Amino acid sequence: MTHDVIYLDNNATTRVDPAAFEAAAPYFCDLYGNPSSIHTFGGNVAKAVLKARLQVAELLNAPYRNADGVPTEIIFTSCGTEADNAAILSGLAARPSRKKIVTTRVEHAALLNQCRNLEHEGYEVVRLGVDGHGRLDMDEVRRAIDADTAIVSVMWANNETGTVFPISEIAKIAHDHGALFHTDAVQAAGKIPIDLEKNSEIDMLSIAGHKLHAPKGIGVLFVRRGVRFKPFVVGGHQEFGRRGGTENVPSIVALGKAAELAREGLEEEVLRLGRLRDRLEKGVLGSIDHIRINGDLNSRLPNTSSISFEYIEGEAILLMLDQFGICASSGSACTTGSLEPSHVLRAMGLPYTAAHGTIRFSFSKFNTGEEVDRVLEVLPGVISTLRQLSPYWPPKES
Amino acid sequence: MTHDVIYLDNNATTRVDPAAFEAAAPYFCDLYGNPSSIHTFGGNVAKAVLKARLQVAELLNAPYRNADGVPTEIIFTSCGTEADNAAILSGLAARPSRKKIVTTRVEHAALLNQCRNLEHEGYEVVRLGVDGHGRLDMDEVRRAIDADTAIVSVMWANNETGTVFPISEIAKIAHDHGALFHTDAVQAAGKIPIDLEKNSEIDMLSIAGHKLHAPKGIGVLFVRRGVRFKPFVVGGHQEFGRRGGTENVPSIVALGKAAELAREGLEEEVLRLGRLRDRLEKGVLGSIDHIRINGDLNSRLPNTSSISFEYIEGEAILLMLDQFGICASSGSACTTGSLEPSHVLRAMGLPYTAAHGTIRFSFSKFNTGEEVDRVLEVLPGVISTLRQLSPYWPPKES
Repeated sequence: MTHDVIYLDNNATTRVDPAAFEAAAPYFCDLYGNPSSIHTFGGNVAKAVLKARLQVAELLNAPYRNADGVPTEIIFTSCGTEADNAAILSGLAARPSRKKIVTTRVEHAALLNQCRNLEHEGYEVVRLGVDGHGRLDMDEVRRAIDADTAIVSVMWANNETGTVFPISEIAKIAHDHGALFHTDAVQAAGKIPIDLEKNSEIDMLSIAGHKLHAPKGIGVLFVRRGVRFKPFVVGGHQEFGRRGGTENVPSIVALGKAAELAREGLEEEVLRLGRLRDRLEKGVLGSIDHIRINGDLNSRLPNTSSISFEYIEGEAILLMLDQFGICASSGSACTTGSLEPSHVLRAMGLPYTAAHGTIRFSFSKFNTGEEVDRVLEVLPGVISTLRQLSPYWPPKES
Repeated sequence: MTHDVIYLDNNATTRVDPAAFEAAAPYFCDLYGNPSSIHTFGGNVAKAVLKARLQVAELLNAPYRNADGVPTEIIFTSCGTEADNAAILSGLAARPSRKKIVTTRVEHAALLNQCRNLEHEGYEVVRLGVDGHGRLDMDEVRRAIDADTAIVSVMWANNETGTVFPISEIAKIAHDHGALFHTDAVQAAGKIPIDLEKNSEIDMLSIAGHKLHAPKGIGVLFVRRGVRFKPFVVGGHQEFGRRGGTENVPSIVALGKAAELAREGLEEEVLRLGRLRDRLEKGVLGSIDHIRINGDLNSRLPNTSSISFEYIEGEAILLMLDQFGICASSGSACTTGSLEPSHVLRAMGLPYTAAHGTIRFSFSKFNTGEEVDRVLEVLPGVISTLRQLSPYWPPKES
């Protein structure tokens, strides 16, 4: 079934790596014990969870280990969204006298919707804008963060354009004012190196397994040692008392394996993904006019290409590509269904006619140059067909 | 590996049914699309999620379907703990002028620890006691619930003793006072019939996949149509806007299949499990003295047997049974590690010498009579060995 599909929607979700699945498979029907159980059958499962925790810590280069060798900074959650929610709420609880959250207009819905709720509860939320390339204005960042700021949350890389933000610089400013710093690294982890030893100003960081070839339904919140943490999902003593609920063992094991695989091949894969993306963009630029490539071309993820095809509708492009078995998206899958252009493109101030016709192609280690070539074969015809049907085409030259 | 193990700890977690695993398996590496994506590849995955939602609705007999045939009362969560947390917080938000939560002393840690936190935030929490058989006093229930009560939460069945509570009766009392009613049905679902059409006073209900042969890391919160709900995990539009985060597709599919299997065989399985339990208890009563069987013998789960072996330590019994490959537990896996007897047994007022020596045996559809016989072969020797080592043995007759 999948063999006919060219899947270029890897920022929405990824194929589970068969090796990660294989690692997890025994934990469903055979090694199904509860890691908290006292018997050996459960205890063996606890060892598998520890191994996965170490693998994740290594991917993030989070070097702290407790006296038993456990990287207790790694907390398994059910997804990136939960990790983001937990980070923000915990940050507010850790700075109870401060009432301000500083974030950006281009965060994931997990952040933005949570912040909107918190605004209704009386918190002040500052949403930093971005320029036409999706970049923050560092002077604006400095002006926004102050002594009333409890937590600053800025994503490591944007899910739609791939723009990578100067996280450590922002984290330092947050710390200068006594605020905590969190980053949603859901789109960065596994795609570019993450080094939490070097980026020591990051207090909390979220990742989602299914963006790096682990299953859906598993995430991680990194909480740096010494940072006060208030649990979000409250129950049993699991995750060092920081996240209740029986551990999702198979998915944790799969995430560990996926993290190990991501780390091993990362340097080379960054280059390979960049070449795939460049091949696509070069091909599109050479065969289709009235397009723009969005994001900070000097600082973006190697796997993400956001291209605006002006004067047509992104949804129509996607449906036609779908008929060729090509999967892409018009923005975040988490906000699909809205007829509005994405909040990210709006924040960047893209003209209406460009924002509506924007397609995100996002690559993974399973994509090939041949797949890119197939897209380049099909895309010019799709765009030209749709433009002939568009009331905005041909554009009035101004 | 598991073939050597006699697993009688099914209230801690269960073996994933191979058929449930098989149903889920394609959704890892092949049908890995995001159900929210616009392309066919994602859309097909959305259909699988819908099918599972229907299967769960049928297990619970939750008959409401929206205009598209979707049982929107079923919200997938990451676990029972999350479902419990969401229910309580939502209940408080739905009755903002009320400041009281009524629950019991024998709830799961998910409820009790959440309630303790809420107490610190200014809510009043009434924890109803139980008698020596683990039963509530309905007069006490009636006295506790009043016009200031926002939500009443009483588990359907207790995880340690299997005692089944008169949920519908309590729910009616809650409604008489304008309070919402939630039940943690984590231990009941799949073990006894749950009928939400008939038990129409239940507003919210939690289940956990891994207690009924689905994987760990998936749960359900049922929210009856018309009951105001405030999301707990806030992010994208998933789960009808009620639970953010990319859907945990493989686990949802597995839970759907497990729910279908549980429902199909339920009537017969209730009887079979009861026979296994009775065989164990009869055998123990016939071969070991100074024991008690805990819980409401007239109203308990068919699969659960809580037995106190007086004058010895439960942990020691478990470790010796473990050497014979027999897995049981001394209480909830979620509170393992504590040296105190479980809060459930303490609430029941068990004498110290009995509470400390209590073992929970919990059966599933994968257990057999031969396994029970093997336990009965081993157990008298284990108990007698430990008693000979015990400073409390022989008991001083009073």
